Amino acid sequence: MIPYNAPIQDMRFTLNHVVGLPKVAELPGFDAVTPDLVDAVLEEAGKLARDVLAPLNWVGDQEGATLENGVVRTATGFRDAYLKYVEGGWNSVPFSPDYGGQGLPWTLALPIQEMWQSANMSFSLCPMLNQGAVELLTAHGSEEQKRLYLEKMITGEWTGTMNLTEPQAGSDVGAVRTKAVPQGDGSYRISGQKIYITFGEHDFTDNIIHLVLARTPTAPAGIKGISLFVVPKFLVNADGSLGDRNDLRCAGLEHKLGIHASPTAVMAYGDNDACVGYLVGEENRGIEYMFTMMNNARLGVGMQGVAIAERAYQQARDYAKGRVQSRALTGKDPNPVAIINHPDVRRMLLSMKSQVEAARALAYLTAFALDNAHNNPDAEARKHYAGLNDLLTPICKAWCTDLGVELTSIGVQVHGGMGFIEETGAAQHFRDARIAPIYEGTNGIQANDLVFRKVIRDGGAAAFALLADIKNVAAQAKDGPGDDLATIGTNLQAAAHAVEQATTWLLEAGKADPVAAASGAVNYLRMFGVTIGGYLTAKGMMAAVEQQRDPSADHKFLDAKLVTGRFYADQVLPTTLGLLKPIVEGHRSVMALAEDQF
Amino acid sequence: MIPYNAPIQDMRFTLNHVVGLPKVAELPGFDAVTPDLVDAVLEEAGKLARDVLAPLNWVGDQEGATLENGVVRTATGFRDAYLKYVEGGWNSVPFSPDYGGQGLPWTLALPIQEMWQSANMSFSLCPMLNQGAVELLTAHGSEEQKRLYLEKMITGEWTGTMNLTEPQAGSDVGAVRTKAVPQGDGSYRISGQKIYITFGEHDFTDNIIHLVLARTPTAPAGIKGISLFVVPKFLVNADGSLGDRNDLRCAGLEHKLGIHASPTAVMAYGDNDACVGYLVGEENRGIEYMFTMMNNARLGVGMQGVAIAERAYQQARDYAKGRVQSRALTGKDPNPVAIINHPDVRRMLLSMKSQVEAARALAYLTAFALDNAHNNPDAEARKHYAGLNDLLTPICKAWCTDLGVELTSIGVQVHGGMGFIEETGAAQHFRDARIAPIYEGTNGIQANDLVFRKVIRDGGAAAFALLADIKNVAAQAKDGPGDDLATIGTNLQAAAHAVEQATTWLLEAGKADPVAAASGAVNYLRMFGVTIGGYLTAKGMMAAVEQQRDPSADHKFLDAKLVTGRFYADQVLPTTLGLLKPIVEGHRSVMALAEDQF
Repeated sequence: MIPYNAPIQDMRFTLNHVVGLPKVAELPGFDAVTPDLVDAVLEEAGKLARDVLAPLNWVGDQEGATLENGVVRTATGFRDAYLKYVEGGWNSVPFSPDYGGQGLPWTLALPIQEMWQSANMSFSLCPMLNQGAVELLTAHGSEEQKRLYLEKMITGEWTGTMNLTEPQAGSDVGAVRTKAVPQGDGSYRISGQKIYITFGEHDFTDNIIHLVLARTPTAPAGIKGISLFVVPKFLVNADGSLGDRNDLRCAGLEHKLGIHASPTAVMAYGDNDACVGYLVGEENRGIEYMFTMMNNARLGVGMQGVAIAERAYQQARDYAKGRVQSRALTGKDPNPVAIINHPDVRRMLLSMKSQVEAARALAYLTAFALDNAHNNPDAEARKHYAGLNDLLTPICKAWCTDLGVELTSIGVQVHGGMGFIEETGAAQHFRDARIAPIYEGTNGIQANDLVFRKVIRDGGAAAFALLADIKNVAAQAKDGPGDDLATIGTNLQAAAHAVEQATTWLLEAGKADPVAAASGAVNYLRMFGVTIGGYLTAKGMMAAVEQQRDPSADHKFLDAKLVTGRFYADQVLPTTLGLLKPIVEGHRSVMALAEDQF
Repeated sequence: MIPYNAPIQDMRFTLNHVVGLPKVAELPGFDAVTPDLVDAVLEEAGKLARDVLAPLNWVGDQEGATLENGVVRTATGFRDAYLKYVEGGWNSVPFSPDYGGQGLPWTLALPIQEMWQSANMSFSLCPMLNQGAVELLTAHGSEEQKRLYLEKMITGEWTGTMNLTEPQAGSDVGAVRTKAVPQGDGSYRISGQKIYITFGEHDFTDNIIHLVLARTPTAPAGIKGISLFVVPKFLVNADGSLGDRNDLRCAGLEHKLGIHASPTAVMAYGDNDACVGYLVGEENRGIEYMFTMMNNARLGVGMQGVAIAERAYQQARDYAKGRVQSRALTGKDPNPVAIINHPDVRRMLLSMKSQVEAARALAYLTAFALDNAHNNPDAEARKHYAGLNDLLTPICKAWCTDLGVELTSIGVQVHGGMGFIEETGAAQHFRDARIAPIYEGTNGIQANDLVFRKVIRDGGAAAFALLADIKNVAAQAKDGPGDDLATIGTNLQAAAHAVEQATTWLLEAGKADPVAAASGAVNYLRMFGVTIGGYLTAKGMMAAVEQQRDPSADHKFLDAKLVTGRFYADQVLPTTLGLLKPIVEGHRSVMALAEDQF
């Protein structure tokens, strides 16, 4: 199995020179974020990812998680790995110091999360879902809830889960039917079935804190009648010790295409009408609370797309360097060469590398916007960055996870026949990657969110502001120095112009004909994603050119940044030109067939 | 599990009105091909596919094939299905009547093959590989070999396999090391290991006839020193009865991403130095012989891409009609609707439907060219069609199989969370589809074949001839009647123009800089594939408009042809515009990184 090594040099370059981690470090609350700390944290996380989590990835795929008599056993080594992860303090990185967290910015927490995801996507889901639960309780829990549950969820002594979906309530979370009946003692009796509950049951910790969406007897219908409850696996006594087993159980584990080591549970609440839950915040505000964590969870899933593509890239690259097959296309040497020397294999590898780096920068930029939206001392700046974060989040979630599928597929292809053999490991990444465009809001839903809530609602203000910035960068790059910068400047300008035209069209169409706007949404999101990727790539190239002036810099790395960016400019950015017509004209046929004509 | 129904109406429409099956029926040797026969054959094949093969697809995936003590057991029901298939005479459809075949044209045999592939891709591989072996023996075997082996391989009493690959000889088949030492009695002693041997061992039949590439002691190095041998599992006596077990065995089965029910064998020849093989034709001409079946095998794999996408489409379509979730985007009804009513789900389904139909037409057209290349009485016409078949084959293989992966992925996406659950069945299609861009020459190799051997070698003659035809159709369509035809005419013209520019560039670049040409090959193939798909879609739309004049025609079907074609025109054809730059400019960075900069 080819090992995983965190791409720390690219991460650090992107953080410091493309996205602006140093600016985040200047924000109030983040003074601990010194360059030394950043280095130490990235290095140490990289070691845990490489030495502990990555070696379990294949075992986890083969063994999966198993359910027997209501008990879920995770794959060999996973529990130990979790304990090491908790022992290292990794679980508390981004959380509030008020409850024992380290309070580091998301801009730094995200690259760390990326490492867990690359190393072992299944494993990384447990902390990721816990993170959502922590954010919810931090924002909306009572002081007692925080003391009883939150602190242990931050250390990692217990884990949290998110229980939204039911068989009839997937994308339409308003259709939730799980019941919560008040008992007069402040608690509620919970009953219902939840599906797709990630790490809904496991053997990592003594307790699991479920956050469950349910409906009280007097709740209004639909999305406005949903409340949020804490439902612990074991009830917790006032002194924090474990009490009785609650009336909830894992009723089944799904048999999935990928992420086999992540137990996806069917959860049954209240089989014996004795499941105790506690209201979080106020009744009927559950969906509103969910939005607290939604952007962040979507950012985390977008990061997964990048992370799994990075892992697939490393796998394909190392295979291509080692596999000897066929003579070189040019020259007279009849001896076979490593396949990395064949032009189409190179093209595939650069296609992976250039898009992984662009998408990574987009994910980190989204985190940067999030930190500024929360911690920037200037109210105007907070508002600006909140708008940017809102705009970027669906793009990051959908574009990066689509790339995850596409690039892991290229990774399989680089291997030839060996790519189809499971033991190689490339196929697992392809299977694992396939969930990310689906969960945490399908990519179709992300596209609608982008078009209707993030672009049309503010009359395109946030989109045009970002496009203005993109055009500035393109104009700067066009001036060079050098052909690589000039090329990305030119092609970025053309891409930005296409996004502008599409945006203008959407603003018109969205009013007159929402179906037309919705029909073009996925292509619009992709076009925007590719363009933002080009913008961040151009920024990275300009920074690289700047640094090349220093003779002591790592020129091999900087030169590679320019070639990789040039590839993105030549081969990726122009695909936006093929998307404009599908957006502005493609809607005409989308709804034109009757159902029985399909 | 959602059933499979062969899309006979679309198949027949495409055969008769887009591709020209009636013209094939006029060729010498094909007088049996009456409309009644075509109907009967398609209907009956559709029944076998629906009732026998499709219901085994999921079982086959779950059980796979198992190896115990050298014996391979296929999944439950597969042997019975094979016997039914043979009993129905399906195995002999396209083969020479001289040896018991039915001698039907490939243009008709291919849609039948498509049905087996849609219904059960794993099962379909056994007849497909046998077909290659049959073609080889028919063209190059001795009369005795034909009498002893070929006739039973045509009835299906025995199956044939193709043994090319070895661990060090994949894409580079010239690196084959398996030895064949003449014994002085006309036979050879074979020794070596072959991998990736599809249905290399199984329990369908009493004997298996392996065709094996090997090297004689005096053979020149490389590709010019490879000979072809018949190596039966059981030796065959002069009277056709089975003799001794030959010294060959299945040494392992691969653990694969998909097509689990197709045993992919590691074959060991001559463990005891007693493996008997018989030379086919002359020594050192093995690779030349392989080309006899190569085009056809690649066409068959291209068809698989379409077939698996068709199956995934039917699965996604039926799911989308049944799954109720969220209210409609417009209107005031608060009740949830079937998800087929949501614009992005429609877009996904039409993206599948329109590309499946276009790709199907391309595959059938390739078969049409093949039949004409063999059976057209006019020498000029034969030459023309041989050139067309040569040009279309790599495009069909690679474009259709890339679509297979992309469209089965969309199929998963349509299902939302259920798509990731294996029991739904959508994920299996996605896994199964992934092999087709790899085997029978990777899609990168197809692209190089297209660029260097099919375009550059004849100075672009075949490519420009086809483009001229495409531009004629585009011009015709532009004149209408109606907006749909006008649109596809316009967009097809633009696409053809882009292919023309790329072709002109390749002809220049190919001479000066083969690496540049190779770097653009995959994008060029895709662009050409999408454009030919548009050309055939436009032809279908024009035929539909023509038929709409008949009040008794099936207007629901014809109207759907126009809407589906319009979707292709609006949403698929314009993507070619994003590929020109990557082809003509994208090569500049492809080889610019040093190996250690990856």
